[in-house]
Amino acid sequence: MIADFFQAIRVRCALSIFCDLFVNSCIFFSSAHVDKSPALCHSPNPMKASLIVHGGAWDIPDKAAEACQSGCQRALTAGWSILSDGGSALDAVEAAIVVLENDPLFDAGYGSHLNLDGRVECDAIVMDGATLRAGSAAALQRIRNPIRLARKILETCPHMMLVSEGAERYAKSHGIPLCDPKELISEAEWQAWQQCKKDKHAAANHRGHEQGTVGAVAIDSRGALFAATSTGGTCCKLPGRIGDSPLIGCGCYADSEAGGVSSTGYGEAIMKVVMAKAAVDLLRGESSSMQAAQETIALFAKRTQATAGLILLDRDGNPGFAFNTPRMAYGYVAPDGSFVTAV
Amino acid sequence: MIADFFQAIRVRCALSIFCDLFVNSCIFFSSAHVDKSPALCHSPNPMKASLIVHGGAWDIPDKAAEACQSGCQRALTAGWSILSDGGSALDAVEAAIVVLENDPLFDAGYGSHLNLDGRVECDAIVMDGATLRAGSAAALQRIRNPIRLARKILETCPHMMLVSEGAERYAKSHGIPLCDPKELISEAEWQAWQQCKKDKHAAANHRGHEQGTVGAVAIDSRGALFAATSTGGTCCKLPGRIGDSPLIGCGCYADSEAGGVSSTGYGEAIMKVVMAKAAVDLLRGESSSMQAAQETIALFAKRTQATAGLILLDRDGNPGFAFNTPRMAYGYVAPDGSFVTAV
Repeated sequence: MIADFFQAIRVRCALSIFCDLFVNSCIFFSSAHVDKSPALCHSPNPMKASLIVHGGAWDIPDKAAEACQSGCQRALTAGWSILSDGGSALDAVEAAIVVLENDPLFDAGYGSHLNLDGRVECDAIVMDGATLRAGSAAALQRIRNPIRLARKILETCPHMMLVSEGAERYAKSHGIPLCDPKELISEAEWQAWQQCKKDKHAAANHRGHEQGTVGAVAIDSRGALFAATSTGGTCCKLPGRIGDSPLIGCGCYADSEAGGVSSTGYGEAIMKVVMAKAAVDLLRGESSSMQAAQETIALFAKRTQATAGLILLDRDGNPGFAFNTPRMAYGYVAPDGSFVTAV
Repeated sequence: MIADFFQAIRVRCALSIFCDLFVNSCIFFSSAHVDKSPALCHSPNPMKASLIVHGGAWDIPDKAAEACQSGCQRALTAGWSILSDGGSALDAVEAAIVVLENDPLFDAGYGSHLNLDGRVECDAIVMDGATLRAGSAAALQRIRNPIRLARKILETCPHMMLVSEGAERYAKSHGIPLCDPKELISEAEWQAWQQCKKDKHAAANHRGHEQGTVGAVAIDSRGALFAATSTGGTCCKLPGRIGDSPLIGCGCYADSEAGGVSSTGYGEAIMKVVMAKAAVDLLRGESSSMQAAQETIALFAKRTQATAGLILLDRDGNPGFAFNTPRMAYGYVAPDGSFVTAV
């Protein structure tokens, strides 16, 4: 039945079926790329590992689609090489996110959108479904891989969320080096920001040239469930702005009793409905993983009239995803170990 | 029936009934003070206004109980003088919170606990149940009344959450003066912090000498619903630490379709279950306002084995409250216009 489910998804992807599933909400599935990787088959573990990633839900232009899909593919490779070898879900989501943070194509880590001051300012979160503990770090200007600091907070801090200079002090005192803020700025974003200045493209007028927030959810062979999200936020945001991404329940949520979620899209709207928690709550009921994802986006669209996307795994590792943006970059590992990616 | 409900609460309060309502959760009601204030009767408005406030759920010592109760009384007076005159719920929650922020007895604004650096660092949020928009400001060191900045963000900012220096820059550019950080430090907290230094009372060892986070929820005669929370966080917290209070869904949530909530207690545990949103979701079902409050604390206690409290109004203005701490300072306006306060 699960195989049928994945086959059904692939057929839908291949046909680029437009699914207008709910009032005010439409979910898009576009062409999927399937990579049969013999080296990445499931190992005979007590519990089936599972992994899903995303590279942001937005109006991804045709010319960027292949690179976005390739990024998701590489993130899956990084995460799955850990999971398929019996490694931990925490290591897997971190590895997958680091790949996407390091890729300037995505709005996380190096190459993030610049804020109104012309600086990269990043946020990240990782959550443990077993303990409900999160590690979250936000408004970071000197951390190359924000997800590593989020993990450090999860594992070593008495608190669950640190911001700004306090977060960077914590990083430095716990072995995470601080970088020069300029090292995080890509040439493309610098050019975009200078153009925005000419266009008076301030946060008050426009919400930026869209998002490429990244996320990952994994379950490992021991049944541990982790979800994670990382972002550079919106272009020309006001310094100190925090969107949904690093907020527990909004940009990320994980509960081993139900499932784990990573959100992407218009942050302030996602915050309004506390979207990741809403999706996990739907997983507590009768909804399948795909239904829960779709119902969440429908609820989100109905209450906010905005656009977003999400990925999730239910507690058994079944993936789900939905978006009402024109496109979302995402990928997951099918039960046979193959990678399914799509933009 | 509502009158019976309030009578029932008062009887329970008067008798100090210990209610062990759910597995792993116990809800305490202690002696309530009822002040019949003839000047504060309901005005004949189209919709009945309603107001509930809290001054924190913790192990309030006997010697502080009267002052905590008096603070709630004054917060009710400030908020209800607006609501009973046909004013707005937003003005009412702001006025109530300002009273509590200005009172050094409570852990919000002036007199907040000091962080590990010996500085006050405050967070506040206010949320509009009609639009689901919030204004949130966190890690503030130079704002006398954080709730005023939260409101400014709600009303004028394209974003919903600003932190640290960026938030203070926004305040300054929008007419909210910055104060000297030392002006926020009370003598009592300075002494306590110095003692904590001697005791190595660092955040890693202890979560502080408890909380007195404050909150308010109001509905006005036009049916507008707002919820708000303000805090100085935990004593000796790491700089940049953000707890539940300013996080949408955790320390505060409001949805005019269901109700509004303000949380108080152990922040990191409240975050785990996204407690305010959980309470509002229960109000969507068959639960009464009191049942929803109690069920939320029961759920919270079951999942986190920690302590917290909350206040709420359902969409019709019926108040609810619950806590599994020894005490919570709270107060609400009964249907006859009298104030019910308790510690």
